[in-house]
Amino acid sequence: MDLLIQKIVQKQNPTVVGLDPQWDFIPDHIKETHIVGKDDMITEVCNTILDFNKRIISSIADIVPAVKPNCAFYEQFGWQGMKALFETIEFARSKDLYVISDGKRNDIGNTMKSYAQAYIGETKVNDYVFRAFPSDALTVNAYLGSDGVLPATELCEKYDKDIFVLVKTSNPSSGELQDKPIKCGYTLIFEQLAMMSKKWGKDLIGKSGYSSVGIVVGATYPKQLKQLRELLSYTFFLVPGYGAQGAGVDDIKFAFDKRGLGAIINSSRAIICAYKKHTNLSFEEACYEEALRMKNEIIDVIGKIG
Amino acid sequence: MDLLIQKIVQKQNPTVVGLDPQWDFIPDHIKETHIVGKDDMITEVCNTILDFNKRIISSIADIVPAVKPNCAFYEQFGWQGMKALFETIEFARSKDLYVISDGKRNDIGNTMKSYAQAYIGETKVNDYVFRAFPSDALTVNAYLGSDGVLPATELCEKYDKDIFVLVKTSNPSSGELQDKPIKCGYTLIFEQLAMMSKKWGKDLIGKSGYSSVGIVVGATYPKQLKQLRELLSYTFFLVPGYGAQGAGVDDIKFAFDKRGLGAIINSSRAIICAYKKHTNLSFEEACYEEALRMKNEIIDVIGKIG
Repeated sequence: MDLLIQKIVQKQNPTVVGLDPQWDFIPDHIKETHIVGKDDMITEVCNTILDFNKRIISSIADIVPAVKPNCAFYEQFGWQGMKALFETIEFARSKDLYVISDGKRNDIGNTMKSYAQAYIGETKVNDYVFRAFPSDALTVNAYLGSDGVLPATELCEKYDKDIFVLVKTSNPSSGELQDKPIKCGYTLIFEQLAMMSKKWGKDLIGKSGYSSVGIVVGATYPKQLKQLRELLSYTFFLVPGYGAQGAGVDDIKFAFDKRGLGAIINSSRAIICAYKKHTNLSFEEACYEEALRMKNEIIDVIGKIG
Repeated sequence: MDLLIQKIVQKQNPTVVGLDPQWDFIPDHIKETHIVGKDDMITEVCNTILDFNKRIISSIADIVPAVKPNCAFYEQFGWQGMKALFETIEFARSKDLYVISDGKRNDIGNTMKSYAQAYIGETKVNDYVFRAFPSDALTVNAYLGSDGVLPATELCEKYDKDIFVLVKTSNPSSGELQDKPIKCGYTLIFEQLAMMSKKWGKDLIGKSGYSSVGIVVGATYPKQLKQLRELLSYTFFLVPGYGAQGAGVDDIKFAFDKRGLGAIINSSRAIICAYKKHTNLSFEEACYEEALRMKNEIIDVIGKIG
């Protein structure tokens, strides 16, 4: 997690911008540039998505350390959409951003290894080496246990990459399973997964004091965020649910340690749709403005980072 | 689940062939046809994978009702690999096979809807309709609760498609989380997920008596398979772990109801690598031979289906 932390400290900003190109998020003037009936429709749609992402990335790259494309919004456009994901990742890295691919991937053994190779490693055929979706981190669903996580942590170690394991997700129904008590009420399922994630990460602690195995904890569950921060000293948190999902700065302040480290807060809609609110600004200015506002809002509460 | 069941009854075969094109599974003579330095390497690799799959599909299509490509083995080759997945799915459907995309996808709300659109629905932009990876079913990880499943069941209803929710997976470490007791030992986590899956599927029961919401239960856990069959009268099982993972026909016989319905047994390696065992047969003959052997082995025990 050292690379992410270095970028957070450098930019004094513990936030990540979600690149979720839902069609109705994209302003008309970007659509009109690409949807012109020159190529086939799917190519024009994917060009639109890529342009949308590039404008966001360019406008926030100076002040934000990381971006988080969610694979689903690309996969719905098939392999052409996955090509747009690849090009988005490449562009973000060319702007020196840390890229978290939010794929929530999960499987076992060689199959999980293939997912990890795709996002945080490389795929080899004979002497040929291929990097499918070259990200710095991948989100992982650990319902299958160690068999589904160790193939990824091996690549974290080999390539100095990171994963974030889903522990307590931000959605309303996350408690249906995650809050069920085990051991006669002494431990909840998400707490069990938090402890398992701690164990998976114990040999991968970097110079920053944080492990390559982070976890996902929703900003919408502040009590659990605080509790997990106290429980997990070397585990970095990826925190979705800020802004549009209803959580504010008071909900996420306990995710950080005394140095202002330990968490990165995601915001998607509030930033990439900021143009709908700031109608006097350009699309790019609105992204920048809202990203800056979010950064300041959090820094005001947690103070200087590092 | 009616379409799958119809094909199972028609072919008197409750098995599905896993299309997992790991590089060392592919015989040299197929590789040598494509890896010739004419195109870029990644294109030649993906052509190899597609050819491998097409040969398997063509050789087993007359006797097997379904195939199950695992997305990871395509995703590791980037968008080019995902194109090979698309073409594999298209080819399998042209041979009238039922296609289960094994993606173990999971997310919430609009994001999960995007995954479901990609595999069992369609993506719309204005009047344009696009089918990304047009499958009959998708495997789903439900750690996030209803928010992660209902967007998919909505599309099951709308397009008459199916999902299979991971409940008790076939891997050795599946119990680390899935076997933890909740409610002071009366229920295990996988049992809880089984009951949740039953609920998610209750309004989607077809003419066959089975719901569009199936579950994944490993053949490597026969006791749990039997228990779940007794618990879930309208829930269809996708059962991995047969053959190469060590489970045999005695382990899976209780997955079926009295009509011989209720489950489909997956085998990947044993069939797609059968040429390594049957060295006197062609690649295609070996696939067919082993698929037939597996069908007969199971039918001998469960009897006539339907």
